[in-house]
Amino acid sequence: MTENNPPSSYEAAGVSIERGDEATDLMRASVEATHGPEVIPNPRGFAGLYALSGLREPVLASTIDGVGTKVLVAGSVGRYDTLGADIVNHCANDVLASGATPLVFVDYVASGRLDPATVAEVVRGAAEACEALGISLVGGETAEMPGLYAGSDLDIVGACMGACERGDVVTGEGVTAGDVVIGLPSSGLHTNGYTLARKVVEDAGLSYEDVAGGLSKTVGEAYLEPHRAYVREVSALRRSVRVRGMAHITGGGLPGNLPRALGGKGARLYEGAWEEPAVFGLIRNLGDVPEDEMRRVFNVGVGFCVVVKAEDAEMAIGVLRDAGCEAKRIGEVVEGGGVEFAPGP
Amino acid sequence: MTENNPPSSYEAAGVSIERGDEATDLMRASVEATHGPEVIPNPRGFAGLYALSGLREPVLASTIDGVGTKVLVAGSVGRYDTLGADIVNHCANDVLASGATPLVFVDYVASGRLDPATVAEVVRGAAEACEALGISLVGGETAEMPGLYAGSDLDIVGACMGACERGDVVTGEGVTAGDVVIGLPSSGLHTNGYTLARKVVEDAGLSYEDVAGGLSKTVGEAYLEPHRAYVREVSALRRSVRVRGMAHITGGGLPGNLPRALGGKGARLYEGAWEEPAVFGLIRNLGDVPEDEMRRVFNVGVGFCVVVKAEDAEMAIGVLRDAGCEAKRIGEVVEGGGVEFAPGP
Repeated sequence: MTENNPPSSYEAAGVSIERGDEATDLMRASVEATHGPEVIPNPRGFAGLYALSGLREPVLASTIDGVGTKVLVAGSVGRYDTLGADIVNHCANDVLASGATPLVFVDYVASGRLDPATVAEVVRGAAEACEALGISLVGGETAEMPGLYAGSDLDIVGACMGACERGDVVTGEGVTAGDVVIGLPSSGLHTNGYTLARKVVEDAGLSYEDVAGGLSKTVGEAYLEPHRAYVREVSALRRSVRVRGMAHITGGGLPGNLPRALGGKGARLYEGAWEEPAVFGLIRNLGDVPEDEMRRVFNVGVGFCVVVKAEDAEMAIGVLRDAGCEAKRIGEVVEGGGVEFAPGP
Repeated sequence: MTENNPPSSYEAAGVSIERGDEATDLMRASVEATHGPEVIPNPRGFAGLYALSGLREPVLASTIDGVGTKVLVAGSVGRYDTLGADIVNHCANDVLASGATPLVFVDYVASGRLDPATVAEVVRGAAEACEALGISLVGGETAEMPGLYAGSDLDIVGACMGACERGDVVTGEGVTAGDVVIGLPSSGLHTNGYTLARKVVEDAGLSYEDVAGGLSKTVGEAYLEPHRAYVREVSALRRSVRVRGMAHITGGGLPGNLPRALGGKGARLYEGAWEEPAVFGLIRNLGDVPEDEMRRVFNVGVGFCVVVKAEDAEMAIGVLRDAGCEAKRIGEVVEGGGVEFAPGP
């Protein structure tokens, strides 16, 4: 839907971009750079087309998500170029956690009053993130909805589809007590917990321009650090090691998300076994936030978990590190559900 | 993202629904009713899984869209049960227009303050629409974003993925002057033009409770009439007749959308060759809206177009009518681009 404007300049698929300004030209080039030979040209079409090949028993994995109130931080700072990477990487990690390879992405940007340059900034960021992950950006929609969004506030939603062989689906089935939980470091808040994160800054009377509490950059920069993707490193891992469960640590933190990868089992996580980006310390101290709330609201430094058999753990960590990811053994699978935090072994 | 709440009760995929109230139980049952054997159980997973089979050269078709400010009409009337069908049918028609069969759907509902009953009402409506079309609802996300949305205002976004054989993709290639444009009737405004439609009602001092200007129902009921899906009838058509182009008539109306199906050709549409739901007459008269604006903003009675060779037109119309769709020959393909409106032959 594009209300009573002509069809959006960046209409679903094949990616018709009609606005002539410079930002849009950059956006168009970025989007087209994500199109390999799998993308079937459909420039004014109603859906983005992607030729799937090489799979005997293909399973499609689909997910949709938004960047949440991280957009309000972006608005305060006046910088929208990282939000595209946030939504692409968030969605790609969700597809990845199911065992599939993310292949195509479509985005939705809605605002009370669409600023073409801002939309182009968001879409260009999404396209660059897609390109980095080998994902084709095949469609998008911009919606101008005065009355629903205040002024230039915007919401950013993305959907990602991937595929894999049926035998490569990972659901946590087969996870066994004694398996090892490997944590992949987050880059910061990713896209979760911004309601609390913003409140802490506001209550403390801080500005996003300030450099505070152990940060080497401004609060705004730390808060806008893009959501990290794990596609390259986890794909490398899966070529070498059998992975039994995977969790993307989003809203709900480790206690809310890790059990989703454990097929009914639970986990004991070793306190202090991983490093935390400084932004979490800032929030904890500034807001005097209790530790269990920190853990339920934020990823506290672990953005993604993989679960492997104990005898595979060392090799898995080696492969992940070779792929440039400072993976750590952060816990073990135990009987029963839930997540407990305990001193390391 | 689910902010600092625990993971949403209706989290991406496999469809984990944890709230226990009655509305949610109904929602769960509706969502599960859309799951055939193709859906791979992944109840707490991060992505919805669907086994694709039967295609030698599969092409995936992806689209994303929102219901726009139709949500504000729903809010005024206090009725959200039709919005799910709106977003499902809108997205499904987009996939359909590319030549693919819609297979899976994921939804995103965002609000300043999520009312579980309202979310359940929306999702239940989406699930019922999916079920009617043979689409599996494999995931969803609810986002609570105080500060971005006012109070209980909400935005509803959906993404639909479909697939077809590569040879069944329809892009408008091969459309030739002299081909026939067949119009499939819309049910009303579908999901476009609500900014103007709402303004007309407001400026006239009408209430959505009023029965006005030729309507047999209230203005609110007419405005909320669900977006019609064309999946069943067009699928039947394609089993019998070769379709050269298809257009879903959304924002931009016939002039904005029909050319997208014509591979560079244009169309002459016959004035008066189709019927208009009464709601368009109401808006035209009440708002004194010029005809060309009506045609650019609204579907004016044609929700979907198919383009066939002249010699196939009669059979195509017959098949569509047998499938329960009052299809009409509404125009012809001409050289040059664009759409002109002219007296019929």
